[in-house]
Amino acid sequence: MREAYRESLQEIDTLLIEMTRLVGRAMSLATRALLDGDLQAAEQVISEDARLDGINDEIDDRATQLVALQQPVAGELRRLLSALRIASSLERMGDLATHVAKTTRLRYPDSVVPVELRGVISDMGAVAQRIVHQTGAAMASHSVELAQRAVVTDEEMDRLHREMFNIMLSPAWTHGVEAAVDLTLVSRFYERFADHAVTINKRIMHIVTGEPYSRTAS
Amino acid sequence: MREAYRESLQEIDTLLIEMTRLVGRAMSLATRALLDGDLQAAEQVISEDARLDGINDEIDDRATQLVALQQPVAGELRRLLSALRIASSLERMGDLATHVAKTTRLRYPDSVVPVELRGVISDMGAVAQRIVHQTGAAMASHSVELAQRAVVTDEEMDRLHREMFNIMLSPAWTHGVEAAVDLTLVSRFYERFADHAVTINKRIMHIVTGEPYSRTAS
Repeated sequence: MREAYRESLQEIDTLLIEMTRLVGRAMSLATRALLDGDLQAAEQVISEDARLDGINDEIDDRATQLVALQQPVAGELRRLLSALRIASSLERMGDLATHVAKTTRLRYPDSVVPVELRGVISDMGAVAQRIVHQTGAAMASHSVELAQRAVVTDEEMDRLHREMFNIMLSPAWTHGVEAAVDLTLVSRFYERFADHAVTINKRIMHIVTGEPYSRTAS
Repeated sequence: MREAYRESLQEIDTLLIEMTRLVGRAMSLATRALLDGDLQAAEQVISEDARLDGINDEIDDRATQLVALQQPVAGELRRLLSALRIASSLERMGDLATHVAKTTRLRYPDSVVPVELRGVISDMGAVAQRIVHQTGAAMASHSVELAQRAVVTDEEMDRLHREMFNIMLSPAWTHGVEAAVDLTLVSRFYERFADHAVTINKRIMHIVTGEPYSRTAS
């Protein structure tokens, strides 16, 4: 019985790691869709988001059932309740990837991204990928050290977010209000994506150390 | 012992309702700060947000302890796990109110809001108030009917969000890219605020009916 219980906990971890993989893939594909005006890639991100919703629901059901049936205490309860919240954050990160993907549609067949912002958006996509990989690795290894790396990576995303605004607000900006409005939201989606990753990593630290979870400023 | 347990559940509900009151007050004050360029009101929103964080932590501790000690099943477990998530959403709504308040600082002593957007922002503030009141009432009465009203109110917020964009993107817009960028984010904060309220009301329906929680599109 305890063996089956331990396996169930392990399965939840495996599902969470699978979610990080799907979320990373979604944001990578969304970034490509946005930069290349690739509507097919955008639609793929949007349709594949249902898998993330499904896994989130499954984690929800399984974790709730384990709490009800196994009556875990202390560390195990902390781990199960954290799993519920980590799954919610990952599901939300998937939503943000679909928001980026949907932006592709706005000016199709033109790209929403003017040439002078392609570099920053491409970097935001790369940083989003990196923070998701770090999150998956921290989860798999239960490592506080790996979880702390995400906080540093998030600072890089914040720097890119500010750089976006600097470019849009410079006198050299010739793309008008409409492009600025679209790209303000896009930049915000990447920034929130990274914030959620930081929240997840703080929860991983909380699971590993038992120290109180410290809320992410955002 | 069961009596004490029932009281503990009731106390968590009371804390959640208190959070809706504080969140409504925060967004109301933030809207006034933004419209009037009132820096003192803005600072008040920012400093009072710590109370929402504190109550969220308290609900977290109490609900986790109740799960560990009382080993609730079925409806009671659902109620406790939902309380954790409702508290998180309310805490996040408080963050969004502080984001609106912080925008006040950007052009102080001038207002960020040009005259042609004052009406829409004022309406967004009023709708935010209304949806929070509805949420508190649905919570207090465990009423599915009241919880459903928030979904309708959210549609009004979405309409205002679109109206903001229509005004900023019209040829009559003379306030440039910088104001449009600031107000795009402000509009997004109000829209997300209402989305969180909808999520909470769907969780209330889930607690009352036991039907699966249906995720909010956003």
